[in-house]
Amino acid sequence: MAETEIIYGRWAVLETLRAERREVTQIIFAEGVEEKGAITEIVNAAKKRNIPIKRAPRRMLDDLSRGANNQGVAMRAGPYPYLELETLMGVSEGRKEKPFFLILDLLQDPQNVGTVIRVADSVGVHGIVLQDRRGVGVTAAVTNASSGAVEHLNVVQVTNLVNAMKRLKEFGVWLVGLDIGPNIQPMDKADLNIPLGLVLGSEGEGMRRLVRDTCDLMITLPMRGHVESLNVATVGAVALYAAWQARQWEGWIPPHQ
Amino acid sequence: MAETEIIYGRWAVLETLRAERREVTQIIFAEGVEEKGAITEIVNAAKKRNIPIKRAPRRMLDDLSRGANNQGVAMRAGPYPYLELETLMGVSEGRKEKPFFLILDLLQDPQNVGTVIRVADSVGVHGIVLQDRRGVGVTAAVTNASSGAVEHLNVVQVTNLVNAMKRLKEFGVWLVGLDIGPNIQPMDKADLNIPLGLVLGSEGEGMRRLVRDTCDLMITLPMRGHVESLNVATVGAVALYAAWQARQWEGWIPPHQ
Repeated sequence: MAETEIIYGRWAVLETLRAERREVTQIIFAEGVEEKGAITEIVNAAKKRNIPIKRAPRRMLDDLSRGANNQGVAMRAGPYPYLELETLMGVSEGRKEKPFFLILDLLQDPQNVGTVIRVADSVGVHGIVLQDRRGVGVTAAVTNASSGAVEHLNVVQVTNLVNAMKRLKEFGVWLVGLDIGPNIQPMDKADLNIPLGLVLGSEGEGMRRLVRDTCDLMITLPMRGHVESLNVATVGAVALYAAWQARQWEGWIPPHQ
Repeated sequence: MAETEIIYGRWAVLETLRAERREVTQIIFAEGVEEKGAITEIVNAAKKRNIPIKRAPRRMLDDLSRGANNQGVAMRAGPYPYLELETLMGVSEGRKEKPFFLILDLLQDPQNVGTVIRVADSVGVHGIVLQDRRGVGVTAAVTNASSGAVEHLNVVQVTNLVNAMKRLKEFGVWLVGLDIGPNIQPMDKADLNIPLGLVLGSEGEGMRRLVRDTCDLMITLPMRGHVESLNVATVGAVALYAAWQARQWEGWIPPHQ
C-alpha cells in the first residue's frame, strides 16, 4: 500500500468498512472500549474481511488521531478513492436521474466540508468536485466530520476547478452558485429541478471571481438577522435540501410502520 | 452584579456589546492581539460605555474560557437576560407578524444549540423556548457557537416545556415537530405559513414522548443517503429556512447595488 491514513471515530471507521472502497490493514480500539453498538458492527465487519484488531492505550489513539476526538476507535487504511471527473456523469446516467453535483471552491475547514458532505449524502448528490491544493481534500478529519458519509460518495479532486466546471457545462450541467450580495435572487426563485451543479465558496472569501463568473446563475439565502453571515455548511445544507425538494424528493423511500 | 460570566470569542464579545442587554464590567485582550476589524469595533463600543479594557497573557484567557477557542478576546458580563414566556407573544404583535418560535427539547451540545440559534436569528425567529436543567441553557459556549446572535434574540427558559407548549397553543400557535420515523409527512407538504412553533428534539434521543404528543403536527426531512441521520442543527437550519420561505421571506431587505 503506497500510503496509510489513520481514520478515527466510530462512524467514520464503520462506514469506511461498510463502503468497502479502501484497503484496511488494522483496526485499533482503546483499552476499555466496550463491544456494543457501533463497536460490535465494526468487529463483525473486520472479522468478515480478516482485518486484525488491536487493543492499545488510549494515549496511543490520541497520538494517532493527533488529539482529535477519536471515541476510542481508529483504523489504518489506504488513501481515499477519488474518481475521475468523467465518471461523474456516468453516475447520474446509471441512476437515470438528472445530474446533481456539489462543487466546493477552496473550503478550508474540515468540519464544514464534512458537515456539508454528510448533507450531500443525505439528499443523494451524485458527485462532489473539489480543487486539490489550497482547499481541503478528503482528510481523516473530513471523513470523521461527515460521520463516514464521504466514504460512500463519489468525490473528484481536480487541479483546476474552473476547467472542471466548464467540462460539466459541456455535459449540460447548469452551475448555480450561492453567494451573498446585491442583485442576487433568493433561492426559491430559481428552478433547481435541472441538471445541477451547486457551487459553494470558501468560508472567509466566498467564491473566487473566476469561479463565480463560470456559474450560470447566482442565488442567495435571504438573511434578516443581526449577525450578517451564516456558516458555509449551513448555507450548503439549506441549498442542497432546496434542490432536492425541487426534485420532489426523488429517490426517497419513506419509512413505513 | 449577582453572577459573572466569561464570554469569549470576537463575535460573541462584539455582539454582546452591540446588543447592550448585559452589564459588562471588563474586556480582556490577549497580549499580541492587534486592534483591527472586530477588535477595533469592540474597543470603540467599550469606550462608548466606559468599560475597562485589560491586556493579559494568552494563557490567562485560555484559563478563563476553560480551554475553548477564545480568539484572544474575553469579557466579564452579567447573566444572560432571559425573558418570560408571556413576553414572546408581544414580540410577534410588535412586529405585526404571525408568531414564529423555536422550541428546543433538551439539546445537549452547546455547538448544536449555538448553530441553530444563529440560523434562528437569520430567519427572524421571534423567540426561543428552552427547558432549564437537563438541557443546555444559554452558556458562554452557546453564545460563542451562535457567533453572538443569541445576544439579540428573545430566549425563554422554562421549568416544564410541555406546559409552556400548551400555553403557546392557547395563544393560537401551532406546534410543528421535526422527527424521523414512519407515517410522518415531508416538510414541504405542511403549510408552515401559520402562527408557528417549530420543535426540535435532542441529539441522541429525539423528542420526549410527551413533547411529541403535545405537537399539533409532525414533519420530517427526507433522507436517502447511507448515513441514516443528520445533525440536529442541520435539521433545524433546513426546517427554519423552509418555514421562512413559506412566509415569503417576510422582513427580508435584499441588498441593492
